[in-house]
Amino acid sequence: MHAFNFLAPARIREQYNTGITMMLDKGLGPRMVEDFLEIAGEHLDFVKFGWGIISLCDRDIIKEKIRIYRDYGVEAHPGGTLFEIAYIQGKLEEYFHEAEKLGFKYLEISDGSIDLPRQEKTRVIENTIDHGFKVISEVGKKDPRNDKIISLKERVEHVKHDLRAGAEKVLIEARESGQNIGVYDEKGNVKEDEVEYLIEHLPAEKLIWEAPQKNQQVYFILKIGPNANLGNIPPEDVISLESMRRGLRGDTLGKVKL
Amino acid sequence: MHAFNFLAPARIREQYNTGITMMLDKGLGPRMVEDFLEIAGEHLDFVKFGWGIISLCDRDIIKEKIRIYRDYGVEAHPGGTLFEIAYIQGKLEEYFHEAEKLGFKYLEISDGSIDLPRQEKTRVIENTIDHGFKVISEVGKKDPRNDKIISLKERVEHVKHDLRAGAEKVLIEARESGQNIGVYDEKGNVKEDEVEYLIEHLPAEKLIWEAPQKNQQVYFILKIGPNANLGNIPPEDVISLESMRRGLRGDTLGKVKL
Amino acid sequence: MHAFNFLAPARIREQYNTGITMMLDKGLGPRMVEDFLEIAGEHLDFVKFGWGIISLCDRDIIKEKIRIYRDYGVEAHPGGTLFEIAYIQGKLEEYFHEAEKLGFKYLEISDGSIDLPRQEKTRVIENTIDHGFKVISEVGKKDPRNDKIISLKERVEHVKHDLRAGAEKVLIEARESGQNIGVYDEKGNVKEDEVEYLIEHLPAEKLIWEAPQKNQQVYFILKIGPNANLGNIPPEDVISLESMRRGLRGDTLGKVKL
Repeated sequence: MHAFNFLAPARIREQYNTGITMMLDKGLGPRMVEDFLEIAGEHLDFVKFGWGIISLCDRDIIKEKIRIYRDYGVEAHPGGTLFEIAYIQGKLEEYFHEAEKLGFKYLEISDGSIDLPRQEKTRVIENTIDHGFKVISEVGKKDPRNDKIISLKERVEHVKHDLRAGAEKVLIEARESGQNIGVYDEKGNVKEDEVEYLIEHLPAEKLIWEAPQKNQQVYFILKIGPNANLGNIPPEDVISLESMRRGLRGDTLGKVKL
Repeated sequence: MHAFNFLAPARIREQYNTGITMMLDKGLGPRMVEDFLEIAGEHLDFVKFGWGIISLCDRDIIKEKIRIYRDYGVEAHPGGTLFEIAYIQGKLEEYFHEAEKLGFKYLEISDGSIDLPRQEKTRVIENTIDHGFKVISEVGKKDPRNDKIISLKERVEHVKHDLRAGAEKVLIEARESGQNIGVYDEKGNVKEDEVEYLIEHLPAEKLIWEAPQKNQQVYFILKIGPNANLGNIPPEDVISLESMRRGLRGDTLGKVKL
Repeated sequence: MHAFNFLAPARIREQYNTGITMMLDKGLGPRMVEDFLEIAGEHLDFVKFGWGIISLCDRDIIKEKIRIYRDYGVEAHPGGTLFEIAYIQGKLEEYFHEAEKLGFKYLEISDGSIDLPRQEKTRVIENTIDHGFKVISEVGKKDPRNDKIISLKERVEHVKHDLRAGAEKVLIEARESGQNIGVYDEKGNVKEDEVEYLIEHLPAEKLIWEAPQKNQQVYFILKIGPNANLGNIPPEDVISLESMRRGLRGDTLGKVKL
């Protein structure tokens, strides 16, 4: 039972599917993860091990972390960059094999730093699913100059394409910073017209908005609702985000419908 | 005994009363809290469990955390937003009851997100004290547009009013960010003339300045002295703040009188 | 063995000498340090206990932390500010004595907040070495107004001077923030012409660039190479930095030569 359990409204949702919170783990120690999940785990769906960092971490620790996260109902997956590195090195089979041995059930398929023609992305997503994984794909380029070239119409097409290929969800790229990338400007402010265009043309429940900054989280909660799917949340802000989803912080108090 | 104990000057003060450091806890795990307090606990007076987050956390963990903090001489209290939610839901009695059962000795009474006419705030503060709690009140609105409407003269009146009603200390609102709110501008710079006005018209030892950013902490230490009461300090900056109070960091070295 | 060990290229370097990563510890608890090093320790050379904070921490905990860091091959040293305080108090002998008893092998000699004429800095560096320590010196002033007065030519002379006096490495001051100080502008952007001047006139392997922000780390990796010596790295970014050194993050993917 929660403290002051008579004050917080419930949030009805289907875990891993709606109202998703996805956290960015940049290399937390295993004891820290356990301690964190004891207090915050129930408010998390997914955790992303950022970019290629797990290839710099002890295998047994990564296995242990995946298991600890799962014990608390949280599914971990490696960052898309690690997939991209395996892909350009021609080591996809080894990638799938190792991911399976480590215990991952979800994989991220992205082309943030590499060229992946659309047909090829389809083939890779299908291949990943054939290997028994669920796929979260990502749309957007990590280099702001390349990212800006992608028109809104193209973004919509990319997302639809990945969904048709079998992706469970599609991440809208915003990196760790949430600045000068995708739907955010240099200061991290939301480009509202762009978000509106995307929402209008795509099923909201299929998107996960990377939203590392608080103002971005507030925006999506007020725009889409308490069950907006949000990603790249820093560990220390996971419970804060849940409190905003439920109107328990000034920013959304009295403004959300649960 | 401290390392290099012959280098650090002592800081004479009365705990919970002068030279207060109040930290913001956004949901630290219990083991993390214990480990943190082992090294930093002696430099803390109060910890605020931010806004409504504890109503999303396991009751037993919150009880345990309150106890751990107290073991290190640190008094925890729930964020004012949680009080405000209980108030607008008409559940103040249950609020007091649960707060007592959890072990809180201090409660924060604020009206950052709700309307609380002055007479009513008096009544609530008195009521809280009647229930055996000590009161820390807060002055300021969480929405910058509403906050800006409050004149300096009004702010002074609000503070005096809360003190007359029995509040031990009054927090000057600055939120987690310390930007575009209260006495801080969009970049977090101190509006010095506003601070000077408040200091001139109010007893400094009764105020706790929310000062999450380092430049803000430096400002108040140099302006008011090493025993300025400061709040909303992020956990990782608690010892840094103490070092600045004692002239052990470049920003205040040779500039503070202890 | 690392997870996905077939993906990450090795980084050849000599620990404590090239490709250095130096972290800033602002007061981590001992269990947290142990947990952190279990996953990240192999990617670290040095840790700096920021400014004077250890003189506010329990001696036994500091001894324990130094030992834990060393168990993972990481050498801790107190911030230069602590040396400066000992120096102006005329307590250098006690400083060396206590540092030795605590287990430090490296000491930082700086003049960021005090005046230390060049001959005197030589004498102090030599004295520190005579006491059995290795010296990391720092060049730069903590107050931006004082720091700006130092010309590039002077900076080069300061560094050369400290190296001649026996310093192992020289830190280029950037503080915790990396903004409006040394080679960084108000926004933390690198003043590229200044860095180029310094690189041209000084041996790169002798410098450690304080580079707390990601864009700064990326800059030096792309400019100097994966083995750039970088300091003041926040704990949560240690593995991220290593991933960038090895081209495992979008910012440097395909752009580094190992």
